[in-house]
Amino acid sequence: MTTPVAPDTAPHCHAEGKLCMPEDARKRAARRLSIARGHLDSIVKMLDDPNVYCVDVLRQIKAVQGALSGAGDVVLRGHLEAHVATAGQRGDTLEMVEEVMEALRYR
Amino acid sequence: MTTPVAPDTAPHCHAEGKLCMPEDARKRAARRLSIARGHLDSIVKMLDDPNVYCVDVLRQIKAVQGALSGAGDVVLRGHLEAHVATAGQRGDTLEMVEEVMEALRYR
Amino acid sequence: MTTPVAPDTAPHCHAEGKLCMPEDARKRAARRLSIARGHLDSIVKMLDDPNVYCVDVLRQIKAVQGALSGAGDVVLRGHLEAHVATAGQRGDTLEMVEEVMEALRYR
Amino acid sequence: MTTPVAPDTAPHCHAEGKLCMPEDARKRAARRLSIARGHLDSIVKMLDDPNVYCVDVLRQIKAVQGALSGAGDVVLRGHLEAHVATAGQRGDTLEMVEEVMEALRYR
Repeated sequence: MTTPVAPDTAPHCHAEGKLCMPEDARKRAARRLSIARGHLDSIVKMLDDPNVYCVDVLRQIKAVQGALSGAGDVVLRGHLEAHVATAGQRGDTLEMVEEVMEALRYR
Repeated sequence: MTTPVAPDTAPHCHAEGKLCMPEDARKRAARRLSIARGHLDSIVKMLDDPNVYCVDVLRQIKAVQGALSGAGDVVLRGHLEAHVATAGQRGDTLEMVEEVMEALRYR
Repeated sequence: MTTPVAPDTAPHCHAEGKLCMPEDARKRAARRLSIARGHLDSIVKMLDDPNVYCVDVLRQIKAVQGALSGAGDVVLRGHLEAHVATAGQRGDTLEMVEEVMEALRYR
Repeated sequence: MTTPVAPDTAPHCHAEGKLCMPEDARKRAARRLSIARGHLDSIVKMLDDPNVYCVDVLRQIKAVQGALSGAGDVVLRGHLEAHVATAGQRGDTLEMVEEVMEALRYR
């Protein structure tokens, strides 16, 4: 492929020919995961109380799962924009799609 | 279709400028969904029996959900290969990624 | 356990000592699954059209998955009310819970 | 706790008439959630590296989601054994089932 990368491509580094995560997605995912970690922390503390109720714990765990899912969406979106949408240009479509399908499995 | 296609692009039509599903994915998804429909049919019949047991029904519903999920994977993979991986070339990356993220939600 | 079954117990048969599905849940689940089957039918037909678009198919598959999930909830609720909530009275709690946990897996 | 418990009932307190989590489930869930928190911690650190790859992050997030799901199963199983299976005896089946169905939603 001889054409230059289209301006439509999200900016991201190619360290030693390896694709890497767009900076914006990286920072936003880190922020969301930090918040989820704090939430998880508070559930662990909540479980110190012998009077804690199962359903309250279940709801909190579910909330953290939602937060992780949101962080995963940030990463996935960045990956699709920066790496999957440009696969046709690089010529590695089949490998890229195989990899992302594998990562989505059991999502 | 008379215009040349990038060699990396999976074959698919562009009816009136609209992207459409790669034929292979279309046929494979149809086959899987037909099988799921037969399975669903047999669950409906199973529910005619007043002695049917809840957990047996739950397991069958889960099996059909797995089959639909497999059919969805066939469609998604075809879409990523034929349409998302070529978005950089067409210049519609943001729209394509937005659309696929929306379709994946609650997956 | 010698006490008679509490009035709180949802009505359901015990064919040959085997638990079976509450009639109301059975009819409602059958109705929902029939509708899902009709929807699945229309997706299979939709896939006959070579101009069908991947994302439209994905959305329809997702809608059927939601319908199946709703039908599964009807069955699960009936099972919890009629069979799990009465396990303490019958004395088969561990088996009943093991079975329902297994059926919920990968839900 | 000095009052007798029905033999089939998993041991758990009834603080001020409120159901609370079986101790074993509480300790096991806390242990699993602590491990998940450590894992989440390492993903946040991993995101400090500008060369991190999206798909590696997605896989790690998915692993933590699996761990949370396992912790949720521990809590749910304890709840079904200690509280749902005894609902027929207490006479609060409908409320208990409604509550657990709500907590399972979007699971």
